Amino acid sequence: MQYISHRNLRFLLHEVLKASDLKRFEYYQDYDQEAFDMALDAAKQIADNVIFPYNKDMDRFKVTVPDGRTVHVHPQLKNIIQAIADGGWISANAPYEQGGSQMPITLANCGLATFYAASINACYPFLTAGAANLIATYGSEELKQDYLPNMYSGAWQGTMALTEPQAGSSLSDVIASAEATEKEGVYKIKGQKIYISGGDHDAVDNVVHLLLARLKGAPAGTKGISLFVVPKYRLDGSDNDVTTAGVYGKMGQKNYVAAHLMYGEADNCEGYIVGQANQGLPYMFQMMNEARIGTGLVAFANASAAYYASLKYANERPQGRHPSNKDATQPQILIIEHAEVRRMLLLQKAIVEGGISLLLECSYLADVAHAAEGEEKENAHLLLELLTPMAKTYPSEMGIISVKTAMQSLGGAGYCDDFPIEQYYREIPINTIYEGTTTIHGMDILGRKIMMKNGKAVELFGNELMKVIGEASTIANLAPMAQKLGLSAQKLKECTQHLIGLAKTETPEVFLADATLYLEYFGYVTIGWQWLKQAVVAQKALATAEGESELNFYNGKIATADFYFEYELPKTRPLHEKLLSSNRVTMTVDKNWIV
Amino acid sequence: MQYISHRNLRFLLHEVLKASDLKRFEYYQDYDQEAFDMALDAAKQIADNVIFPYNKDMDRFKVTVPDGRTVHVHPQLKNIIQAIADGGWISANAPYEQGGSQMPITLANCGLATFYAASINACYPFLTAGAANLIATYGSEELKQDYLPNMYSGAWQGTMALTEPQAGSSLSDVIASAEATEKEGVYKIKGQKIYISGGDHDAVDNVVHLLLARLKGAPAGTKGISLFVVPKYRLDGSDNDVTTAGVYGKMGQKNYVAAHLMYGEADNCEGYIVGQANQGLPYMFQMMNEARIGTGLVAFANASAAYYASLKYANERPQGRHPSNKDATQPQILIIEHAEVRRMLLLQKAIVEGGISLLLECSYLADVAHAAEGEEKENAHLLLELLTPMAKTYPSEMGIISVKTAMQSLGGAGYCDDFPIEQYYREIPINTIYEGTTTIHGMDILGRKIMMKNGKAVELFGNELMKVIGEASTIANLAPMAQKLGLSAQKLKECTQHLIGLAKTETPEVFLADATLYLEYFGYVTIGWQWLKQAVVAQKALATAEGESELNFYNGKIATADFYFEYELPKTRPLHEKLLSSNRVTMTVDKNWIV
Repeated sequence: MQYISHRNLRFLLHEVLKASDLKRFEYYQDYDQEAFDMALDAAKQIADNVIFPYNKDMDRFKVTVPDGRTVHVHPQLKNIIQAIADGGWISANAPYEQGGSQMPITLANCGLATFYAASINACYPFLTAGAANLIATYGSEELKQDYLPNMYSGAWQGTMALTEPQAGSSLSDVIASAEATEKEGVYKIKGQKIYISGGDHDAVDNVVHLLLARLKGAPAGTKGISLFVVPKYRLDGSDNDVTTAGVYGKMGQKNYVAAHLMYGEADNCEGYIVGQANQGLPYMFQMMNEARIGTGLVAFANASAAYYASLKYANERPQGRHPSNKDATQPQILIIEHAEVRRMLLLQKAIVEGGISLLLECSYLADVAHAAEGEEKENAHLLLELLTPMAKTYPSEMGIISVKTAMQSLGGAGYCDDFPIEQYYREIPINTIYEGTTTIHGMDILGRKIMMKNGKAVELFGNELMKVIGEASTIANLAPMAQKLGLSAQKLKECTQHLIGLAKTETPEVFLADATLYLEYFGYVTIGWQWLKQAVVAQKALATAEGESELNFYNGKIATADFYFEYELPKTRPLHEKLLSSNRVTMTVDKNWIV
Repeated sequence: MQYISHRNLRFLLHEVLKASDLKRFEYYQDYDQEAFDMALDAAKQIADNVIFPYNKDMDRFKVTVPDGRTVHVHPQLKNIIQAIADGGWISANAPYEQGGSQMPITLANCGLATFYAASINACYPFLTAGAANLIATYGSEELKQDYLPNMYSGAWQGTMALTEPQAGSSLSDVIASAEATEKEGVYKIKGQKIYISGGDHDAVDNVVHLLLARLKGAPAGTKGISLFVVPKYRLDGSDNDVTTAGVYGKMGQKNYVAAHLMYGEADNCEGYIVGQANQGLPYMFQMMNEARIGTGLVAFANASAAYYASLKYANERPQGRHPSNKDATQPQILIIEHAEVRRMLLLQKAIVEGGISLLLECSYLADVAHAAEGEEKENAHLLLELLTPMAKTYPSEMGIISVKTAMQSLGGAGYCDDFPIEQYYREIPINTIYEGTTTIHGMDILGRKIMMKNGKAVELFGNELMKVIGEASTIANLAPMAQKLGLSAQKLKECTQHLIGLAKTETPEVFLADATLYLEYFGYVTIGWQWLKQAVVAQKALATAEGESELNFYNGKIATADFYFEYELPKTRPLHEKLLSSNRVTMTVDKNWIV
């Protein structure tokens, strides 16, 4: 059963991004193309053998808290975490001297995508990786020595403990408290956290929470938040007063625990400060940005697995006949022969391969931002910051549409559990909520990102667009696509300027009222950019490609790009119209009218 | 907990449709406005007391087939079916002389919508009603006497047994067989049927299948299909050789059984022919058309329940602050204060109330088609035929978007089972598949309905549009909406003419390639028509309305119409563009390129 295309990953890595050029940086010097391919193959082995065969069973396994303390998860999870850790994937990005492999994030994220596509329940180790990287970057030497080895080895789980019942997305309102003790760097933690992914489970020996809390007397809002390491068990093995109040009944991702945790109920919970006091939020945002790309990868993975399942079905299931031949004595045709089914498959392919293309582009930028110096570093960082809301949101929002389309192309079979689509359908929507809802990312792109450094990030993005549009314009069959992308980018610019104007003349509320629509628009243009890039590479490759499957692959890329510009990009038109409109119904409607 | 608005149903019934005018027909003479309101109240009583309190529990109850024969469902279902039957709802539309109440379908469907909104698992009795109505219309006197009393009383379940493993949506390929016996009208049935809703369960004493099968020697295709009554138990109580091979593991609607049934495995299954041989499909289409409106109602009901749950949450949940006031020492505001949350609520309200408005319009047309004579009857029938694909598809497809939006506005809470949204999210998508997938309805509207009687139905629809556009144009604040609707209707006409042109100059495949997009377009215009109608009525009512809640109600209608024309109707633009485009990528793409 196929759930991800490694041919496509290799296309993006080697042909589009030319990612092994990263070896020009000392940090990544050991990663030539062969090293990339070996790592990809190794990931596929783990996914095929250790993860995918248990995907359905993990979905059906009910997570429990039998002793009211430790969460009991599917037994295979321990093997999955161990296999991923043993393969070096948790510490992949970390420096050699910390036991890592200095693997480019671009490559590591191909591994993650492979594991997630095999089962979303394989997310745990990457929470740990994110938490460990945060300690590695901002923690004291002592914290590093105490925690990193067991986290990188997969023995201990890491978490991000941000959300609280009264605060939700509003991190300003975090009230978990930290009180200094006589021991330097050691604080008494009190509070509760909700929806903590991997918050507790029995596939590991310990859980290490990277927790946001407020020091006594800290300023109100986000400027008074500090970051702590709060383990479930202390280093001496004693209990650290972290208890599981319960686990949430998630619609999908059934074996990926979200826990409600209580810290310091017995007034005996120790937390160890990471870095400086009141700097918790900026620190956490390092992990958050990784986690946003990670969320995009999870969404991509779900949509990818659903796409290949529906493609398989379409190639095996005979039903109906062409409209021009209704003769019921003739055999039925495979449903992939129907134009409407092809449209549904191309839509999925456009979303899935457009999404992963953007996610790897972002990963590549993260690598450059990490390893380069000076302007190159700064530009990569800026562009990554700008693109992150789309990289998180497009695969998540459009992934729902993609999986719904997979379901439709299976008919009744798509809704029932003999086929895997219904599982993916239940799993994918949480990605529009993880690490900031879509609405919050709308605020982020419009209210923050486009203004960064006087619009420098948007300018960089515009340059990238122009580069590929210029190139595609010289290729006959791609020129119409280039023209469409250019036009929609220009109209996006119009919207941006109009909205920036509003920010000056009207209230921030008016400026941001349709931020989500702006994000949606930006998403379509960004994915259009990715498709045009892919089409240019594929068109050139066709000249020298050999063998039917290679020709099919490249022709499929060009056809899907064609589909995207014909069916998907035009969806920006009504967004353009709305964003320029002076209608303010969502602002002027009285809340009591909404009944 | 609110899950449906009866104030809205009364608005649509009494103010928009003026449905009690149906009493001008003899058949409906007893239904004045008071009779409507009493029936609505009675439905609400049943829904509130007998259905809604069990909704969550039924979702969690696992349907089983303990003895390999009879399907075991949640025990409350028997009470639900009985309460609905006792309230006269199964036989509601039937004539007095058959024990029915001659209730207008418009009113009966308000009852159904209420029951479904309380729980989708309350669908069973209406399958029975559809099956019974089919026997009442086409069956022999003997069949009527033998089956109708126990079906109308709720003692026996009725089903539609169409789908077969090798045929799916392609009814041409039905192969279940019927062989004449020496007894007139009695046939031996052999075959299997899949995905049969209500196919077997222990909340009733017997199950009566309305089954499609092929007589020996019948013509191939849909012209050789006949309709049979096939009971689980014969009238003498003996077994009729209908066995349950299994039940499907549905993603939602967990207590609404879909069964895989085997008929005549022991060569002892009797079927009783309904009406004439080889006329099965036209007969079944009577039930099918009802069932399509019914599917729209089910989808509406899910989206309605999700909407009110998210509205309640938005009015209770404090989180964040306005963009112009980030002061974290100030209290947080209710999330309904955020423009983005209002947008999400208005989107849901537009979909939910637009959908039910169309569904009741269709129900009203069904009543006129049933009770009127001559041209009035014919016109109502034609318009109903035209509108049915949209009435089935818009609430189903857009209902998914609506429930997804409800989930987004709850954040993490929307994904977990402490709140009801995740249940609705799992339940709603099957409506895009029941009674013909969306794709099939696309073929139906474009390939069949717009051509009916030389385009008479489309002409009637155009007249209806012009009527309300004309009226709204004279009302200052509605005139812009009228203009938008007029423009998009005109552009739809352009598409229609273009496509009809293609049907003449190109292959049927090209003509129908984007039928689903055409349906989507038609859906937006149709719902625009409904919103403009509602806005006109609401605007007039505002002049005399008294009391804050009434003013809020009408103002809410106008604001939601405004929202619809501002945010939703413009989504027809890219559809217009695509339908006129000569790009044929879904036709020309080689299937081997889709990898």
